[in-house]
Amino acid sequence: MTVLVTRREKFNAGHRLFNPAFTDEHNLEVFGKCSNPSGHGHNYVLEVTVAGEVDPETGYVMDLGILSDVINKQIIQDVDHRNLNIDVEWMRGKIPTAEVMADTFWDRLEEHLPAGLLYRVVVRETDKNWAERRRVL
Amino acid sequence: MTVLVTRREKFNAGHRLFNPAFTDEHNLEVFGKCSNPSGHGHNYVLEVTVAGEVDPETGYVMDLGILSDVINKQIIQDVDHRNLNIDVEWMRGKIPTAEVMADTFWDRLEEHLPAGLLYRVVVRETDKNWAERRRVL
Amino acid sequence: MTVLVTRREKFNAGHRLFNPAFTDEHNLEVFGKCSNPSGHGHNYVLEVTVAGEVDPETGYVMDLGILSDVINKQIIQDVDHRNLNIDVEWMRGKIPTAEVMADTFWDRLEEHLPAGLLYRVVVRETDKNWAERRRVL
Amino acid sequence: MTVLVTRREKFNAGHRLFNPAFTDEHNLEVFGKCSNPSGHGHNYVLEVTVAGEVDPETGYVMDLGILSDVINKQIIQDVDHRNLNIDVEWMRGKIPTAEVMADTFWDRLEEHLPAGLLYRVVVRETDKNWAERRRVL
Amino acid sequence: MTVLVTRREKFNAGHRLFNPAFTDEHNLEVFGKCSNPSGHGHNYVLEVTVAGEVDPETGYVMDLGILSDVINKQIIQDVDHRNLNIDVEWMRGKIPTAEVMADTFWDRLEEHLPAGLLYRVVVRETDKNWAERRRVL
Amino acid sequence: MTVLVTRREKFNAGHRLFNPAFTDEHNLEVFGKCSNPSGHGHNYVLEVTVAGEVDPETGYVMDLGILSDVINKQIIQDVDHRNLNIDVEWMRGKIPTAEVMADTFWDRLEEHLPAGLLYRVVVRETDKNWAERRRVL
Repeated sequence: MTVLVTRREKFNAGHRLFNPAFTDEHNLEVFGKCSNPSGHGHNYVLEVTVAGEVDPETGYVMDLGILSDVINKQIIQDVDHRNLNIDVEWMRGKIPTAEVMADTFWDRLEEHLPAGLLYRVVVRETDKNWAERRRVL
Repeated sequence: MTVLVTRREKFNAGHRLFNPAFTDEHNLEVFGKCSNPSGHGHNYVLEVTVAGEVDPETGYVMDLGILSDVINKQIIQDVDHRNLNIDVEWMRGKIPTAEVMADTFWDRLEEHLPAGLLYRVVVRETDKNWAERRRVL
Repeated sequence: MTVLVTRREKFNAGHRLFNPAFTDEHNLEVFGKCSNPSGHGHNYVLEVTVAGEVDPETGYVMDLGILSDVINKQIIQDVDHRNLNIDVEWMRGKIPTAEVMADTFWDRLEEHLPAGLLYRVVVRETDKNWAERRRVL
Repeated sequence: MTVLVTRREKFNAGHRLFNPAFTDEHNLEVFGKCSNPSGHGHNYVLEVTVAGEVDPETGYVMDLGILSDVINKQIIQDVDHRNLNIDVEWMRGKIPTAEVMADTFWDRLEEHLPAGLLYRVVVRETDKNWAERRRVL
Repeated sequence: MTVLVTRREKFNAGHRLFNPAFTDEHNLEVFGKCSNPSGHGHNYVLEVTVAGEVDPETGYVMDLGILSDVINKQIIQDVDHRNLNIDVEWMRGKIPTAEVMADTFWDRLEEHLPAGLLYRVVVRETDKNWAERRRVL
Repeated sequence: MTVLVTRREKFNAGHRLFNPAFTDEHNLEVFGKCSNPSGHGHNYVLEVTVAGEVDPETGYVMDLGILSDVINKQIIQDVDHRNLNIDVEWMRGKIPTAEVMADTFWDRLEEHLPAGLLYRVVVRETDKNWAERRRVL
């Protein structure tokens, strides 16, 4: 029986939405107040779901302590209390929307988790806006 | 890569559950205290999810400001601080359960969003009860 | 040692803000969309705090089951799934704002609780608006 | 049109994660502080989703009062304020992880709900950890 | 009868904790990761409470729409989607901790509210950390 | 200017409410299902508030990292994933109600914080029940 298990982590980061290929006017037009040059920030919530068989010996699909370690090592320690546009090497050249973050976090997590286990990555920017990438839509 | 993006909005409305084709006794039997003739109400939460490709120029599946405008224009401005049985023209003749609301809201949103983008509509009546309609089940 | 203990209960009700002594225009001016004649409603949260000595035999200031019973009997059973303007005898002639509700609920609770125990009554109308009455300000 | 409807219930229970076939050392290695012999506990949240056609006569996929009764009778009354390792007959011999609970709860609920209606069971152990079993992944 | 009424607003902002009079080493020692030069940010919650008599004609201590307007005009429009160290003229020279923000916001709000009405200002930086200033402690 | 600052921490623990001086019948009468011999448990929330002057050099009343360390060392490491009746030496002989916990936690925290700084300790057992001890009522 396949069961989904989720781990939620949090981090605080600064960001600014803008595309360096756009003019300032076009950035303002597209991204509005999110393109403010000095940046702003969020209390981000990150939820990572794995899907798999329940191991009868442990009752676990995966030890959530190990999942938490992978999330912290691949994501949180690099982004927490950081500026997503400036400080995070693997976000360079990307526009740090929730969509792009969910997509990028998926790629970083997938290669450090057992094959086929990752099912869903949700990035909540505020309690009004969030993005998710899933294995199966 | 397909990514899901969600926008959450809130509204406060009154409603009463009853079917005019039922007798008063049968309404009470079916809907219980929800059929109280003077009505009651809720702090509704509405979550609308779109699914699509991330535009590399903006990092957006869809500008959530535009999605918010569509939700407000098609739904919120008509239902907020209104009685769902009496004041909302496009709810007339419908029983305003969370299920019917999710279904009706979907139809109103879909025709004002780019084709194929709408993925999920969730209507939360309380933190104990909610309904959702999805593109793919 | 005085300790505070709180019990939270919920109810759903309809209401309309208007003063029958005002003209329709003045009601609209004062209460805006809250004066919509067909009413709207809320998922109300009610928090009742008692303050007193901890009984060394039970570890309780007051059995919260008994406090819950008082809240339910004095308040919840009369207001839940009701229209506050029409259905609740002891709200008649009152404008059902959160302030008036906190004040009225206090009076109803105080006479059914041991003397001097009631400390605070909070009425949350939404997660953006709430009112509270306290023994000591 | 298929619509999903969810009911959320809560219960408080004690548990301990350990496998009697393991040595004490191996239990500690696998389950860490969750294997503390005197146990600990959680405020569990249980969300049960059914999926089906909306009945045009009631606006319901299923009366959530009936769903709540099934959840309470099959699950809550047996687990609330209980120790999951000791007090719950139908959990005997199982390791009470959120995964195993979601899986076991599904089986108990499914046989008491109309055929084909059950869609999803979510068990939230904390706001950081939860498990879900679904009809369709 | 004095009643308290609260309005909650939200804003997203960037900030960095550092004292220009300190060396870089001392800033890091005092403020840790919060002193990261590129800054980070938060989804701030601001709760403003007024205390006063309930007006029998309106049931209001104060129209929360007016309170919301004051909060937005004096605070939110200047800080939302801004960097608190760089963009907000009236925060210049202040270290943007939650304590300093609560204190500074109080002063800005008090002069635009009826005398003696302001009771409490709470600034929530995350769901783990918040600060409040009150009229009476 | 005195400002309040709060730190919230969480822990999961098991407990059972009973007084060994009572008969089993009287324990059941007083504590109901909370006296179940095998115990149950909760996701506890602990909020600790300190009140003091804001240091102009740091913008802090107290470094919340230090406050968090005191809370963890004096409380969390002893109670997290523990049974409050059995495993916690300094809870022995006490009935682990939220009231008694708030009172006991206050005493343990006060002696490890700068004199006069501790203002309030809140222990939330569920989202319906909590207790608090304060310096000034």
